Amino acid sequence: MKKTLTLLLSLLVSYSYAQNADSVAIRKIYNEALSNGKSYEWLRHLTKQIGPRLSGSAGAQKAVDWTKLVMEQQGFDRVFLQDVMVPHWVRGAKEEAFIHIGKQKMTVPIAALGGSVATPPRGIEAQVIEVKSFPELRALGPEKVKGKIVFYNRPMDPTKINTFEAYGGAVDQRANGATEAAKLGAVGAIVRSMTNVHDDNPHVGGMRYGTGVALIPTAAISTNGADLLSKSLKENPSLTFYFKQNCETLPDAKSYNVVGEIKGSEKPDEIIVVGGHLDSWDLAEGAHDDGAGCVQSMEVLRIMKALGIKPKRTIRAVMFMNEENGLRGGVQYADLAKKNNEKHIAAVESDNGGFTPRGFGIVGKPEQREKIMAWKPLLSPYGLAEIGPGGGGADIGPLAQTGTVLLGFKPDSQRYFDYHHTTVDRFEAVSQRELELGAASMAAIVYLLDAYGL
Amino acid sequence: MKKTLTLLLSLLVSYSYAQNADSVAIRKIYNEALSNGKSYEWLRHLTKQIGPRLSGSAGAQKAVDWTKLVMEQQGFDRVFLQDVMVPHWVRGAKEEAFIHIGKQKMTVPIAALGGSVATPPRGIEAQVIEVKSFPELRALGPEKVKGKIVFYNRPMDPTKINTFEAYGGAVDQRANGATEAAKLGAVGAIVRSMTNVHDDNPHVGGMRYGTGVALIPTAAISTNGADLLSKSLKENPSLTFYFKQNCETLPDAKSYNVVGEIKGSEKPDEIIVVGGHLDSWDLAEGAHDDGAGCVQSMEVLRIMKALGIKPKRTIRAVMFMNEENGLRGGVQYADLAKKNNEKHIAAVESDNGGFTPRGFGIVGKPEQREKIMAWKPLLSPYGLAEIGPGGGGADIGPLAQTGTVLLGFKPDSQRYFDYHHTTVDRFEAVSQRELELGAASMAAIVYLLDAYGL
Repeated sequence: MKKTLTLLLSLLVSYSYAQNADSVAIRKIYNEALSNGKSYEWLRHLTKQIGPRLSGSAGAQKAVDWTKLVMEQQGFDRVFLQDVMVPHWVRGAKEEAFIHIGKQKMTVPIAALGGSVATPPRGIEAQVIEVKSFPELRALGPEKVKGKIVFYNRPMDPTKINTFEAYGGAVDQRANGATEAAKLGAVGAIVRSMTNVHDDNPHVGGMRYGTGVALIPTAAISTNGADLLSKSLKENPSLTFYFKQNCETLPDAKSYNVVGEIKGSEKPDEIIVVGGHLDSWDLAEGAHDDGAGCVQSMEVLRIMKALGIKPKRTIRAVMFMNEENGLRGGVQYADLAKKNNEKHIAAVESDNGGFTPRGFGIVGKPEQREKIMAWKPLLSPYGLAEIGPGGGGADIGPLAQTGTVLLGFKPDSQRYFDYHHTTVDRFEAVSQRELELGAASMAAIVYLLDAYGL
Repeated sequence: MKKTLTLLLSLLVSYSYAQNADSVAIRKIYNEALSNGKSYEWLRHLTKQIGPRLSGSAGAQKAVDWTKLVMEQQGFDRVFLQDVMVPHWVRGAKEEAFIHIGKQKMTVPIAALGGSVATPPRGIEAQVIEVKSFPELRALGPEKVKGKIVFYNRPMDPTKINTFEAYGGAVDQRANGATEAAKLGAVGAIVRSMTNVHDDNPHVGGMRYGTGVALIPTAAISTNGADLLSKSLKENPSLTFYFKQNCETLPDAKSYNVVGEIKGSEKPDEIIVVGGHLDSWDLAEGAHDDGAGCVQSMEVLRIMKALGIKPKRTIRAVMFMNEENGLRGGVQYADLAKKNNEKHIAAVESDNGGFTPRGFGIVGKPEQREKIMAWKPLLSPYGLAEIGPGGGGADIGPLAQTGTVLLGFKPDSQRYFDYHHTTVDRFEAVSQRELELGAASMAAIVYLLDAYGL
């Protein structure tokens, strides 16, 4: 009995000691990020010196070269590129649009959705039919839709506490609106911007055409523009809407994922990824989406080196290419991992903005989730209260097929869609402390994943 | 046995029913705040139409008149003013300051601290002694300080996760720096702004002179200015600093707390206060500090009316006057409550900015705290994870003497000191969703306090 007690006691002591050592290590990680952090100045360069970096653009290539250089300068064990062919869509000259009522023309801000075809060079002008959903559109039938521009005007639901849920409940209009409208003979599709804010910025984003359906041009309209159009339609149902856009899809372009690595000291074949995506929409500096995730991921490795943490497992910072309009980088990364027989035990992605940390969403088996959730007491002092089942991240998603546990970094979601995919997603919209706390949170979870495995 | 089981079961059912009814009510509160909220437009008026409102100023009086009018228009059961005499300090003409090295004069941004005396009309010029703390200053002794300007340059500690802790660790320099410097014969005191940001804004705030010590002028210098001064001192220890400020303290002025009330239907004599402070610093629109708290408090009552919630107890929205440089409104409110034999069971204050809600800090007896903490499952779906012992709020503080339980609304603290007491604390710095979520969080806790008492 006495023996058992002694054993139990010694186990308890060593457990407490490990807990305490982890707690000290995590405190050092936050101190380093908040006192000597590089993420903010890196983000300044990526947004202000490089700027927009849509897949296939010169900006995207500059971002590849620069992040590779930064990681080389940091002296990570290995820095390398992975080739990936990416879609190459270009906006061309700025769009024009107005609401036409008799002799009156009211200009409204629009922007072509990524992947859309252009209008004819003279533009398109047609009557408008406003709908809130695909069922509502289909109920109208082709006779009421044919030859018209479909105007999708279902707002994001403001009562959803997590704004990503509200986004998820509205984004079908942007992704598939053109296809659904074309099926009924519409000549164009205009989509209310995905944001809770009332502003004059068209918030762009990706769309896809269905097969066997006419390719009609589609654009985002600012929320203020959408409100004006809706109001005008109530007063003048027969008004016309004019828009002109000049975008085109060029042949696929060669691009790269950028990878930096610290080699594991005990289990180098077990890999933990921490990443974000390097591409952004063409109208945005891509500060929150997803410059933040990129600089935070590089910062995770920098912090480990700065603190002399020698990970047991191999830690990789991955800047994925082409999340916005293709996910080719994420798919390529997982394909290469499979081909090279790499064992990825976990992947952490930051792609919800550089806001105050709230937690991590986990995709994995129940026992893996339980293991991670047991670390809550170590992380809650840093505001990471929400650790549980949840989404991982688009770029790391393809790794799940081979059993990698996915962790999506969850910052506060309230302001994300104020900036998302629009010109105001710029450096000035990011708080240095919030960005740094996010980097530290990712470093802390990577530290624990490395220490205890999965 | 069967009887006992039936009784237990029925208790359980009624408990679940109550939990569920509360959950539904709280969901409605958030829906109302996020769909039909008035707080954001009220804040726009208070900041953009009224603007700065330091105690005794015309702006403060306009804010009293306007919040009274708003609450009357909302049809609250009773709206009234409480007289209170407040300090009346005025800044006068804008300050001037420069670092003087040989023929070179480098202008730096300063602003007189609230309560400071002016410099002589020609200003003050003297050598500078930089210190990080009072012990360091005292160790220098009068011989090294006499005739000089003391420059307090201890930054807020960036490694504190809660920025209010970092503020608490630095603000002694602002509050008592002039007095401690004067004790050693200094002729002025310049204080590094209380912020983690590197910017050109002097962040002002209150200071007090000790008794029996010379009144020397004191000002905040921007963090960039402080860094420049510190660097210049290292290169030229004998440089001089010039500053001129024109502030003065006028006789106390008459002002008011503004109170709006919904009468309790069952226990009208039990009062629950929800409040913020109406005054702001003169350089700021006072959006986060504390326009947010005022409009959120009015919104709590509006939401209850809009949802047809008839509280059992009396609910009061209180706009306290003079938190910034005297706390006269808070003291007066508690004095009147005592004099009128009012029973205040709880008081909730929002004075930490209009940021995303994280929880409530509670000041009360352990069993009262436990009761409130047991509501966590109802509040955590809204991000209110941090409910536990903590600070209440300056204005409601004096109510604690008569046993009132205090609840301090805790929004995320990361950005607060970016704006605090400076010109950038303006409407544009507030996110509509964050503000509305704060109002809903306060309404939810008031709803529960009313439903279950303390």
